[in-house]
Amino acid sequence: MRTAHGDVETPAFMPVGTQGAVKGVTHRELDTLGAEILLSNTYHLYLRPGDDLIARRGGLHRFIGWNKPILTDSGGYQVFSLSDRRTIDENGAHFRSHLDGSAHSLTPEKAADIQAQLGSDVAMVLDECLAHPATEEAARLSMERTLRWAARARDRFVTLREGTVPGVTMSNPGQAQFGIVQGGVFPGLREVSAGETVKIGFEAYAIGGLSVGEPPAVMYDVVSRTTPCLPSDRPRYLMGTGTPGDLVESVARGIDLFDCVLPTRNARNGQLFTQDGPISIKNARYADDQGPPDPECGCPTCRTHSRAYLRHLFLSGEMAGSTLNTVHNLHFYLDTMRRIREAIEFGILADFARAFLDRYTRRARH
Amino acid sequence: MRTAHGDVETPAFMPVGTQGAVKGVTHRELDTLGAEILLSNTYHLYLRPGDDLIARRGGLHRFIGWNKPILTDSGGYQVFSLSDRRTIDENGAHFRSHLDGSAHSLTPEKAADIQAQLGSDVAMVLDECLAHPATEEAARLSMERTLRWAARARDRFVTLREGTVPGVTMSNPGQAQFGIVQGGVFPGLREVSAGETVKIGFEAYAIGGLSVGEPPAVMYDVVSRTTPCLPSDRPRYLMGTGTPGDLVESVARGIDLFDCVLPTRNARNGQLFTQDGPISIKNARYADDQGPPDPECGCPTCRTHSRAYLRHLFLSGEMAGSTLNTVHNLHFYLDTMRRIREAIEFGILADFARAFLDRYTRRARH
Repeated sequence: MRTAHGDVETPAFMPVGTQGAVKGVTHRELDTLGAEILLSNTYHLYLRPGDDLIARRGGLHRFIGWNKPILTDSGGYQVFSLSDRRTIDENGAHFRSHLDGSAHSLTPEKAADIQAQLGSDVAMVLDECLAHPATEEAARLSMERTLRWAARARDRFVTLREGTVPGVTMSNPGQAQFGIVQGGVFPGLREVSAGETVKIGFEAYAIGGLSVGEPPAVMYDVVSRTTPCLPSDRPRYLMGTGTPGDLVESVARGIDLFDCVLPTRNARNGQLFTQDGPISIKNARYADDQGPPDPECGCPTCRTHSRAYLRHLFLSGEMAGSTLNTVHNLHFYLDTMRRIREAIEFGILADFARAFLDRYTRRARH
Repeated sequence: MRTAHGDVETPAFMPVGTQGAVKGVTHRELDTLGAEILLSNTYHLYLRPGDDLIARRGGLHRFIGWNKPILTDSGGYQVFSLSDRRTIDENGAHFRSHLDGSAHSLTPEKAADIQAQLGSDVAMVLDECLAHPATEEAARLSMERTLRWAARARDRFVTLREGTVPGVTMSNPGQAQFGIVQGGVFPGLREVSAGETVKIGFEAYAIGGLSVGEPPAVMYDVVSRTTPCLPSDRPRYLMGTGTPGDLVESVARGIDLFDCVLPTRNARNGQLFTQDGPISIKNARYADDQGPPDPECGCPTCRTHSRAYLRHLFLSGEMAGSTLNTVHNLHFYLDTMRRIREAIEFGILADFARAFLDRYTRRARH
C-alpha cells in the first residue's frame, strides 16, 4: 500500500494510537518493532487537542512526531458508543463530549473536514455503526444510510482536495479516503453495500460493523462473501479486528489491513500472546518462573526478562510492566503479519494458517 | 567507584527503581541514557516478591534483567515513614506491611541479610531516620543508636561474607557495605558520627538524614562539615538528594553519589527540568508551542517532540507522556553529572557551578 508518508507491506496490522500515542510505548519503540502504520482516533483528537491546533502544527504527523503512515477513523464508532449522549438522524450524529459535555455534530462532511485538518494518510468515511444483533431490515436501512453518507463524504473529500473549503486546512494533499462496507451479518446486504460503495469510488475499501459480538464463524463468512466484491488491486481493511486467529483466518479470506486494541489493552491487563495461545502473567504459577514469556520470541522483553519479573511488575502496578507486555504483544502481532506475508510469498498460506491455528488453539482444546 | 558489576564514573546520580523498575522507563531506555547504577528499595522488594524468591532467581540483577551496578537502601527509611504502623526499639524497627498488614521486624542484621539475598553491589546499613526538626539531644541519642546498629550491621555483613549464616544466600560475593553518618542538623554530632562510623570501617560512607525538610543552606552547611571527616579515597553518598542545584552545590562540597525520585516523580507530574529551571508542561502557554521542551537538550524526547504534544499527552493521561517526560528528566540529571565530571577534569568546577546555578535560578529570581 502506497501512502503519502511511505509504503506499507500488506497484509499489515496497525497499532492503535487513540489520542496520538500508542498506550504503553513510545513511537521509537514502535519503530524498532517494525510498525509501518498507526491508527489514530478522530473523535478523541477532535475533542482534544482539536483539529484546528493540529492543523496549525502542520498536521498529525508533525504534531505527534511520527513520520510514517497514519490512518484515522471517522470518529463515528466512538460517537455511536456514547449511547446515552448521542442522537442520529439523516444529517449525521449529534453528541455531547465525554470530556466536558459540550454539544457537537459529526456529519459525513465534518468527519472529512476534521481528517483533512489532521492530515492522515488514509481518512475513513463516516458510516453508521449498528449494534449487534440487528434485524435484516434495520441492517438494510442502516446500510443504505451509510451509502448516502459515503456519497456525501466523497463529494466533500473531492472538494477538500481542490482546496476550496473555507476554514479547513488540507494538511496532507496526498490523503486517501476509504469507503466502508456495512450490512451486518447479512451477506446479501454486504454484497449490495460493497457494489454501491465501489460505484461511488474510493482509493480503497474497508469492512465495518464486524467484531461487534457476532460469533467468529459468522464474521469469517461475511468476510468471505464481501472481499470478492471489492477490487483486488486495492487494500481491503477489516476494521477493529482481532485475535491472532482472526488475522490469519481473515488474510486467507482476502483482507490486507487490520487494527485492534487487543495487543495493547490486553498487555496492560497482563495477557501475553504466544504461539501456544495467550497466557495470563498474573497467574501464581509464574511467580518463580525464570523462563521468558515466550521461549520462541525474539522481542526485547523476551530477550531480557522472565515471567517471574513481569508478574512482579504487574502485581506491583509498575508502568514498566505495561510497557514490556505491550512491546511483546505488538511484536507478536507484527511478527505474525510478517510470517503471513512470507507464507503468501512462498505460496504456502493455507499450510501456514492450518499450522498456526492448530498450535494457537491446542492448549485451549486440551 | 568499582563494583562487582562494573565501574561507575563519579560523581554519579542513581535513578530510583523502587520495586526493581524505574517508574516510566525500561532498563533499555536507562541504558541508552547512560545510567551506570540504579538504586532499589529493600523494604519494597522484601515484601514483594520477597528476597527468598529473588535469591532463588540468582539475585536482583538477574531477577530484573539489569547487569550494571545496583545499590540497595536498608529499608529503614520506608519503615520509619510508616509512622503509625511501626515501633522502634534498640533491637530494630517493628512494622506492619503496607500491603497486607502482616507483622515484620527490621533489625541491623535482618537488613544485611535481605540485602545479601538481593545481591546488590552496595548494601546500606540500617540507620535510624529522625524526623526534622529534632532537638540536639534527640539527634544525639538517635545518632548513637545508629552507631550501635552500624557495628552490628558490619559484624553481620562480615559473617555473611564468610557464608556462614544459615538460611541466607549471599547472592553477590562482591557486595560492598556502606556506613551512614547521622546527627541531624548539628555539625558537632555529624563529626562524631563520621569519626565513629569510619572507625567501624566500611567500604564507603553515606550522609543520611538530610533533604528531610531543612533549608538548603543548612543541608549544604552540614555536608561541608561532614565530608572532610570521611576518607577522600572512598565515594561519599548523599542520600535522597536532590534538586539540580543540590547536586552542583553538594559535589562542590565533596559528594560523589546521589539518588532522588525528583526527576522521575516530577516527570509524571508534568514538571520538566531545563538549564533555565523547571517548567510545568501542563501550562496553557505551551498548548500551541512547537518548540522542544528544552531547546539545548539532545535527549530522544527533545529531539522528536514538541511542548504542545507533551502537554496534550499529559492532559490526556497517556502513559507515553510520563515516559517521554521521564526520559527527558533523567537525561537532564545524568547529563548534568556528566558536565560536572567534565568540569572537575578541567579544573573549572567552581566556575561551572556558578554559571549553572546562576542560569538555573535566574528565571525564578525575575
